Amino acid sequence: MARSSERFRPFQLEGLPLPEEALQRWLAALPRRRPPVERVPLGEAAGRVLAEDIASRQPVPHFARSQVDGVAVRAADTAGATAEAPVSLRLRGRVAMGRPAGWPVAAGEAALVPTGGMLPPGTDAVVMVEEFPELLGSGSSHVPERVTVRRAVAAGENVIPPGADVQPGQVVLTAGRRLRAHDVGVLAGVGVTEVPVFARPQVALISTGVELVPPEAEPGPGQIRDMNAVALAALVEQGGGRVRPMGIVADDREALRDVIARGLACDMVVLSGGSSVGEEDWTARIVEEMGPPGVIVHGVRLAPGKPTLLALVGDVPVVGAPGNPVSAQVVFRLYGLPALRRIAGEADAAGWQATVRARLTEDVRGPRGRELHMRVALVPGPAGWLARPIRGGSHQLMTMVAADGLIVVPPDETLPAGSVVEVRPWG
Amino acid sequence: MARSSERFRPFQLEGLPLPEEALQRWLAALPRRRPPVERVPLGEAAGRVLAEDIASRQPVPHFARSQVDGVAVRAADTAGATAEAPVSLRLRGRVAMGRPAGWPVAAGEAALVPTGGMLPPGTDAVVMVEEFPELLGSGSSHVPERVTVRRAVAAGENVIPPGADVQPGQVVLTAGRRLRAHDVGVLAGVGVTEVPVFARPQVALISTGVELVPPEAEPGPGQIRDMNAVALAALVEQGGGRVRPMGIVADDREALRDVIARGLACDMVVLSGGSSVGEEDWTARIVEEMGPPGVIVHGVRLAPGKPTLLALVGDVPVVGAPGNPVSAQVVFRLYGLPALRRIAGEADAAGWQATVRARLTEDVRGPRGRELHMRVALVPGPAGWLARPIRGGSHQLMTMVAADGLIVVPPDETLPAGSVVEVRPWG
Repeated sequence: MARSSERFRPFQLEGLPLPEEALQRWLAALPRRRPPVERVPLGEAAGRVLAEDIASRQPVPHFARSQVDGVAVRAADTAGATAEAPVSLRLRGRVAMGRPAGWPVAAGEAALVPTGGMLPPGTDAVVMVEEFPELLGSGSSHVPERVTVRRAVAAGENVIPPGADVQPGQVVLTAGRRLRAHDVGVLAGVGVTEVPVFARPQVALISTGVELVPPEAEPGPGQIRDMNAVALAALVEQGGGRVRPMGIVADDREALRDVIARGLACDMVVLSGGSSVGEEDWTARIVEEMGPPGVIVHGVRLAPGKPTLLALVGDVPVVGAPGNPVSAQVVFRLYGLPALRRIAGEADAAGWQATVRARLTEDVRGPRGRELHMRVALVPGPAGWLARPIRGGSHQLMTMVAADGLIVVPPDETLPAGSVVEVRPWG
Repeated sequence: MARSSERFRPFQLEGLPLPEEALQRWLAALPRRRPPVERVPLGEAAGRVLAEDIASRQPVPHFARSQVDGVAVRAADTAGATAEAPVSLRLRGRVAMGRPAGWPVAAGEAALVPTGGMLPPGTDAVVMVEEFPELLGSGSSHVPERVTVRRAVAAGENVIPPGADVQPGQVVLTAGRRLRAHDVGVLAGVGVTEVPVFARPQVALISTGVELVPPEAEPGPGQIRDMNAVALAALVEQGGGRVRPMGIVADDREALRDVIARGLACDMVVLSGGSSVGEEDWTARIVEEMGPPGVIVHGVRLAPGKPTLLALVGDVPVVGAPGNPVSAQVVFRLYGLPALRRIAGEADAAGWQATVRARLTEDVRGPRGRELHMRVALVPGPAGWLARPIRGGSHQLMTMVAADGLIVVPPDETLPAGSVVEVRPWG
């Protein structure tokens, strides 16, 4: 559908940036804001963006722990010990798991200690229980009077010192980090149970097109159901945003101006365009009228997604995606999600991308002047994964259902069957 | 911490499966159940598992649409037309976007149609507006009386036929699919606004260890805060489960039996073990006592995570992960998440894994007899990504914070610096 309207665009293909260049321009233009901070219980913090550096008040662990089941000793007592000239130590008792030893261990003494148990004061090393034949086979409650150490033990042997995981005062997590499962585990470890996070950005979602009806409506002749609103909403939620649905507007100038103005009260505005001639230009002009900095990128040498509009009104990003549902998904993944991460207060990603290497099952030709982001299905082959191109127009959302991800085909190039490609799975 | 308790385990390293073999045994044993079905609004369906095949009642689109801005014609009228012998057609009018044409187009007639607009009855092809000099430059409201077609046009040219995206009766999405953004877009397109999905499985989370205190408590001597409960809960939520926190239990037999019995009322039970000798054996024995099929895997040639317990009581999976927080995360990702997907009613994944290829910055040696799942950080290098091993014990959860993912190092092998490795990012 977008094909013809693109021909009416004021820009020529030649002047447009390639997708990566457009992304760099977009990232450079996007402001860094500090979103409002809210405190959430630890159990709700995973997936949120941390708003403050978190330092630990205490070391973790805050006491010396044994790495093994064994005998806690004073290393100095064992100096010079050998199998021929062993050292006999008096066993002071058994340290209970999760409890203080309760008594200090003096020179010439030792104590039984479980894995993870606290070393009694005075001890600085642990000898594994296997090194004491006198301890093996005895019932777990039996504590002999003495043990015999048959070698010299180094201080610190089999000991997890205080602070082995976290030093006191150490910053364990920095502001701008999107919290993973193990990150909230660390917060638990340092006792942070109310977590300062940035408020989730609110994203206004606008579908434009006089031909569109909501999914619950029965489309009449010439009408189709709006697929973009819910599909983009799902990506926004996945990216950590909250959706403010603005409904469907006819692609006339006044309606568009009005809805964009209302959308700018949110942290970000996403439009999926209709298909009528020049309508993207209206969006661009309306956005320009609403204030600087205005349009950052207008048109990308990308297929699907050439009529992409990336703009800023004040510090509110405006992403104009084409109306074809495949294009809208591709464009929002490429440019909307990074903008969402930025306004969410997330620190910039390192830039790596997880992919699945696969071999193309057939030739794929990149279109003239445009980088093709082609849908492929991953199918098992005799020697690893195969990438089977899913052909079809960008109006056919079912092609995304049939695919597992995208490959990038450079402009004007043909990737022959058998080429190794990096598939970016939907995730 | 687990080191010593592993030595006391009744099984020898040699008899244990490698991680992949353990996974296959586990998957083979996990039952296929049909979870209860609930209906959720379309806007909440993304990320849920579809409970029924969804067929479209209607074709999408349900009318012939133009792919371009142009002139809808009857292809037969243009037979034999050339620049020298063009065909003149009477323009019946302009089709409005989103509206029926309102009038049929007879032989010798044509109609203006916008991109995405409905073809008027009688027409079967569209000629792009660029092919009509008489239409270019004229104001958008002007409709000339006649247009001249200068070539023969094939039926179907520039037409999206009814059903191009979805055929009537076509199953667009099958039961067991975890719904992605574009999937809910398709549901919108076919008018499904109440979506049948499987109820999210409820997962009982049990932390064992007398030394553990909840994150909000101030640990006394010998005590540490429980990091596993929140960190595993985050993975469960990420995997689509609902967490039923069962708290911390001392690792004594009666307490463990009682809490496991209560946990079995959920769809899955996850324990993170303490560190005292033999406690995993208790769990295994308790689970065996509770009914068949019992223990499926007990011990894996995996580092970290050797004392892993995978069991079933009836159709309830029980995952016993070691208490060290790194081990607990690694083991739950390997064995807990696939079990969660299975009991959620999800169809089996195709099996591909997205990775980041990188070069090792230093030698990494796999331990004797065990496959090492090593934490690495991804750092940019002169020619692509580098994988920097993060050394440290499995009690050091900060090593996961410092890392971006895991690499697999085969038992008894050394991967030399510079080797290409596939990093599985945390995701």
